[in-house]
Amino acid sequence: MYDTERLEAIQALQNALAESDAVAVKAALQELDAPQIIDNWGEFAPEHHLVILTLLPASEAAEVFSHLEEDEQTALLEALPRWRVKELLGELYLDDLTDTLQAVEEEDPELAEEIKAQLDPETRAEVEELSEYEEDEAGGLMTSEYIALRDSMSVEEVLRFLRRAAPDAEQVYYLYVVDAAERLEGVVSLRDLIVADPKTRVREIMNPDVKYVRTDTDQEVVARMMADYNFQALPVVDENGVLSGIITIDDVVDVIEEEATEDIYRLGAVEAPELVYSRSTVWELWSARVRWLVVLIVGGMFSSTILEGFEATLSAVTALTFYLTILLGAGGNTGNQSSTLIVRALATGDVRGRDWWRILFKELGVGLLLGLTLAAVLAVKVVADGHAEILPVLALSLATLMTVTNIVGALLPIGIKKLGLDPALISNPLIATLSDLTGLLIYLSVARMLLQI
Amino acid sequence: MYDTERLEAIQALQNALAESDAVAVKAALQELDAPQIIDNWGEFAPEHHLVILTLLPASEAAEVFSHLEEDEQTALLEALPRWRVKELLGELYLDDLTDTLQAVEEEDPELAEEIKAQLDPETRAEVEELSEYEEDEAGGLMTSEYIALRDSMSVEEVLRFLRRAAPDAEQVYYLYVVDAAERLEGVVSLRDLIVADPKTRVREIMNPDVKYVRTDTDQEVVARMMADYNFQALPVVDENGVLSGIITIDDVVDVIEEEATEDIYRLGAVEAPELVYSRSTVWELWSARVRWLVVLIVGGMFSSTILEGFEATLSAVTALTFYLTILLGAGGNTGNQSSTLIVRALATGDVRGRDWWRILFKELGVGLLLGLTLAAVLAVKVVADGHAEILPVLALSLATLMTVTNIVGALLPIGIKKLGLDPALISNPLIATLSDLTGLLIYLSVARMLLQI
Repeated sequence: MYDTERLEAIQALQNALAESDAVAVKAALQELDAPQIIDNWGEFAPEHHLVILTLLPASEAAEVFSHLEEDEQTALLEALPRWRVKELLGELYLDDLTDTLQAVEEEDPELAEEIKAQLDPETRAEVEELSEYEEDEAGGLMTSEYIALRDSMSVEEVLRFLRRAAPDAEQVYYLYVVDAAERLEGVVSLRDLIVADPKTRVREIMNPDVKYVRTDTDQEVVARMMADYNFQALPVVDENGVLSGIITIDDVVDVIEEEATEDIYRLGAVEAPELVYSRSTVWELWSARVRWLVVLIVGGMFSSTILEGFEATLSAVTALTFYLTILLGAGGNTGNQSSTLIVRALATGDVRGRDWWRILFKELGVGLLLGLTLAAVLAVKVVADGHAEILPVLALSLATLMTVTNIVGALLPIGIKKLGLDPALISNPLIATLSDLTGLLIYLSVARMLLQI
Repeated sequence: MYDTERLEAIQALQNALAESDAVAVKAALQELDAPQIIDNWGEFAPEHHLVILTLLPASEAAEVFSHLEEDEQTALLEALPRWRVKELLGELYLDDLTDTLQAVEEEDPELAEEIKAQLDPETRAEVEELSEYEEDEAGGLMTSEYIALRDSMSVEEVLRFLRRAAPDAEQVYYLYVVDAAERLEGVVSLRDLIVADPKTRVREIMNPDVKYVRTDTDQEVVARMMADYNFQALPVVDENGVLSGIITIDDVVDVIEEEATEDIYRLGAVEAPELVYSRSTVWELWSARVRWLVVLIVGGMFSSTILEGFEATLSAVTALTFYLTILLGAGGNTGNQSSTLIVRALATGDVRGRDWWRILFKELGVGLLLGLTLAAVLAVKVVADGHAEILPVLALSLATLMTVTNIVGALLPIGIKKLGLDPALISNPLIATLSDLTGLLIYLSVARMLLQI
């Protein structure tokens, strides 16, 4: 239902846009909500994006806008009428507004200045404060629109206070308690407040053992913590324990998706964590991919040197060449499997760097078993082909190669992590290339040795 | 901080466990919360798991328990004293209790019956109802512990009602409004209730345009919808529009992680969506991996037939063999990149099946550009090696192969999706194997043609 309903409404909007019929566009937009528009954004022609953002109610326009890529945000802000820009930015939550202004600043500093000049002084000060944090740290995820209480307040007072403050806060279900110096002291949930006697003081019902992160905590740690604890919101404090902001679960859902996308891209040797396929040009895709391909082909060039070095062996027994691809393929596939498992286990916190020796033994066993299994499968083919004379060479090399690539595939991500880099940099193509080189050396050395050439 | 604090407390617990000192274990457990214990579960010896679950406060024990693998849950329930089992299951939310009982039923039907007999009749009826839904559908994710309102209630009445009902509900921040037949009519947030005048009727402040899913909606759709709309909770209705349960955001965070893990495993040709590395034995890992490796080696065996078929060409120009690995490697890597991008774009909803022709043209362009770039890089090596005579063969085959594998890598996931299967089944190893076969055919045919052998 999420899919079909949407398609009809989107079609109606497309038709209205094609006919430049503003009344029909407005009517069609009423049938859609912001997430539906965001989800179909790529279906609309770029010139229609401007129309949609102009005709949508400001709050929905802001929601759509906050989900766009940064370069598109800047382009739209440049093109939209000034009054609309003001309306739209006024509807954004402070964290989104800050992200947008940071993006605009990079692409069009003049426009950024102009927009900032229009903000009220308080908002501008808060945006400037939020701008100082790194985008991938807790400070860059948090919003300063939270509600802070004092522990001497009564439940009644809090509820009265909430009636005024709730409409502006991004999240009202967890309320943080601070002392006179704004230091975080505890947390109280709206649920607790509702259940409590109106005369109770906050200090009697608050949980003083409140979990928090610091402004410089990495967003992956934040995401893991919120997922582990099932938190709806998480407070962020500065180095003095002063409450600086809160992070809400919706930002973390985005982070989890982003981190998974980044890992999946890296495992496929695509170096562009923020690339969105449907919005990328041929050139952008080329540039996200060409670097790794060049690095890998240059690294893989050593293979021709190895093959040339073993020319005599290869010419003496031509059948060796026939099984080259099978052997190298199996080695690469095995290494891919083990590196995939370990990269994911590291990402979800299932295994850690210091578990390396346990993994080494496990993968030694798994690799050996897999190698023997596949050697048995290959033996049938080799004998059927009438090349039984090289069966010992093939079986021994295959089992050795698979054991080696299996261990290499598992341990490389751990090694990379110990260097402080992302384990997913050990991509499948990188493992395949390493396996090719190792495989050739193992195969041809074993052949030379066993066949006495 | 999330890391170091935890390590000390875990170490203290380990020591207390090793010394079988129940008092010290209890003291150490007080310093830890359930997520910290879950996160370090694998660090404890299996015999200590039982001790931890017995000594933890029942509510925390239940939280830890609900995160364990199903086979471990059954084993623990069999080993724990009966009074503890009752306490522990009594603390579980209905959705978790249902999942647990379903797992126990498979492994130990007798124990499942015994536990069910101990439940109060109302809980048993609800568990039996929830058991009827598929685990990967909305019905299997939802809980029936929600709060439903009638639209004639006043805000005051709702708040009074909440004071009694809130402690039992899994989520109180979004309240669903139903009519006399329990059909879903609207939603009202606790925020709206707090801000509203106490005399207001629910119907005046509720949002009648409430988003919902059906009990049989796939969990991926549920996750996408909640992430898109930033929902904290989502109501689930049956075929008659009757409210059957709600899904909370914490369940969805798990689903998003699970689906990403499944995709990452599949892309690495590991067929075991629920495998948790640290808890898997060598045999389990072997069996999760061997099937794909056997399929791929058998498929790849065609390569030896191709190579044997071109034996004359290969013997006439031995240098052709030297570049075989480089060529096939580059083809596989290119196909991996494009399939990675498309699998992820399909998973996040960024592209859809009907976009295939747009993708075809895009990837034709990208593949051609990449092929020409890499052919230029390879040319330097080939000339330096003194094999300029086969440069035309190599450059032409490389550019062709890369263009072909690039398109195949992009379109195969779409084709698989159209068949109703998971696009991530087009794993990197599968693409590499297909690219090997295609690459050999292209390379050797071009060689035979251009070199006239």
